[in-house]
Amino acid sequence: MSASSPSPRRVAIVGATGAVGREMVDVLHRRSFPVAELGLFASERSAGRTVETPFGEKTLVAFDVEKVKGYDIVLLAVSGDFAKEHAPAIAAGGALVIDNSSAFRYDDNVPLIVPEINAHAMGAIEQGKGKLIANPNCTTAIAVVALGPLHKAFGLKRVIVSTYQATSGAGAEGMAELEEQTRNQLDGKPVVNSVFRHPIPFNLIPQIDAFQENGYTKEEMKVTWETRKILEIPDLPVSCTAVRIPTYRAHSEAITVETLSPVTPDAARAVLADAPGVVVKDVPADGVYPMPLNATGQFDVEVGRIRTSLIFGDHGLDLFVCGDQLLKGAALNAVQIAELSL
Amino acid sequence: MSASSPSPRRVAIVGATGAVGREMVDVLHRRSFPVAELGLFASERSAGRTVETPFGEKTLVAFDVEKVKGYDIVLLAVSGDFAKEHAPAIAAGGALVIDNSSAFRYDDNVPLIVPEINAHAMGAIEQGKGKLIANPNCTTAIAVVALGPLHKAFGLKRVIVSTYQATSGAGAEGMAELEEQTRNQLDGKPVVNSVFRHPIPFNLIPQIDAFQENGYTKEEMKVTWETRKILEIPDLPVSCTAVRIPTYRAHSEAITVETLSPVTPDAARAVLADAPGVVVKDVPADGVYPMPLNATGQFDVEVGRIRTSLIFGDHGLDLFVCGDQLLKGAALNAVQIAELSL
Repeated sequence: MSASSPSPRRVAIVGATGAVGREMVDVLHRRSFPVAELGLFASERSAGRTVETPFGEKTLVAFDVEKVKGYDIVLLAVSGDFAKEHAPAIAAGGALVIDNSSAFRYDDNVPLIVPEINAHAMGAIEQGKGKLIANPNCTTAIAVVALGPLHKAFGLKRVIVSTYQATSGAGAEGMAELEEQTRNQLDGKPVVNSVFRHPIPFNLIPQIDAFQENGYTKEEMKVTWETRKILEIPDLPVSCTAVRIPTYRAHSEAITVETLSPVTPDAARAVLADAPGVVVKDVPADGVYPMPLNATGQFDVEVGRIRTSLIFGDHGLDLFVCGDQLLKGAALNAVQIAELSL
Repeated sequence: MSASSPSPRRVAIVGATGAVGREMVDVLHRRSFPVAELGLFASERSAGRTVETPFGEKTLVAFDVEKVKGYDIVLLAVSGDFAKEHAPAIAAGGALVIDNSSAFRYDDNVPLIVPEINAHAMGAIEQGKGKLIANPNCTTAIAVVALGPLHKAFGLKRVIVSTYQATSGAGAEGMAELEEQTRNQLDGKPVVNSVFRHPIPFNLIPQIDAFQENGYTKEEMKVTWETRKILEIPDLPVSCTAVRIPTYRAHSEAITVETLSPVTPDAARAVLADAPGVVVKDVPADGVYPMPLNATGQFDVEVGRIRTSLIFGDHGLDLFVCGDQLLKGAALNAVQIAELSL
């Protein structure tokens, strides 16, 4: 943000009724984003319904690409197919478009931004001249706020990630299925699954998104591809196992890194303590470490369990991170990208 | 087992009222172990109570080292301190003692056995001459039934494990706390924790057992130490992150291995399909992979998500395993050890 007060912007959210869309409204308010006007766009089905927001009562508007074009900033919380169809036209109309889908993330011409890490990759933003920016995958966004500073300080050579992902990654319906079906299981009623491929209560599912030819899921490959792009290390070996677990909205990740320079847990802690978007939660003897229970609703990503790798010795670390999937994993990061344009 | 019918044995279970002790009774029956007499030992508090078992109604007996000494086989499902105090005396009395605690696992004179992997390490068992055998940590036992065959075929160079551990690891009380507190959370009542250090419903806890000086928990180091001892690779680099998740009784593990020889997923699948104690569940396109939902109550460890490592290339694999913590992770393995003595 510039030192002087930035001029308020007209902001549209497309997909405003979804879990991410609703968080976007909330985050704009929590971060005092200068909103001149807020347009909430949704499907025909929801159009006309009024919703209470921190910006007052708003009426949901049926999405129409022409109506959306008039806004300064357009936050897309929609499917990849929807984004692919409409995002370029909206950007061509002059808006800064921040797309939460994966549609454009691997396009060399589209910046993929985590503001704490690669704000420089945004390029020039001129008001009235549209631009399309991709918001990263939730697991990746949460990981890189810790990995970026470690890379800067010690150089990353290899990264191995195992995830513990919340049901919010499947939207509000995912969280609702967890709650309803857990209640059914406790009450001895039949447990059914429609959002998830298998029942999620008291279970885990080692599949998120579709399987690729190499045996990894698309979710797992997103972590590889997007970490490389955001950290600007095109050939960084990154491997991920992505697992859905019965939690609501904070993703956790067990991460092993090999570094180019020697590293100690204390040096890593010092680097991460100074890193934006990170809060070090690492007093294990006192039971202080990252957990969904505490990370939920928080902007910062919790990092802890920092220790010397038993595999890579003084050139490696094990760590554990936890961040709110709907915030740093989606809505917060999108709003932070919008802030870069102020 | 010898070809001729083995002579029935007098079997005692110490700690018979706990989650593992109860499973031991059940497993002896499920596997048609030749039981001449079954003695169920418990604390003074439980003594005199009768319990229904597949071997008929039994009366719980207060533990007394002299009473237990008379049995051929003594399965200990007790604390490490209790085992340390009594196991040597019981073995000295002539019984084959199989201890489920960690008390003797790292003693060079005590075999640590997973029958599918290192039955040869049992040494001679002579009836009437007592012997003490250690039953491994649950996470380790589940991992090594997959790692052992892979080591034999391709050679293991490094192993990285992230766990998704069930509440049964904290006994029947752990499972009860998960159920009761989940219900409280759904009903909007206060959620309390007494078994676990933090609330477990819809949360995870990246701590199992106490922290060691190197920043790893004792649970994590058990996986390192015990995998090395069972696989007989004293210096194998093994690193673990152990995490408690809100599931009941099956542990899952995301495992990355680097191998000495080149390996392909197909070759690994072929090796594992022939491995005892393992069932390959690896048709990801059809949603077939290891999950607690299916592994619960099963003797075999499920192995799937087998793919070429993005880190170690053709000298590495990623895989996912899931096994019942109370069965292969405890009671089943103990009974299998007893079977080796028949």
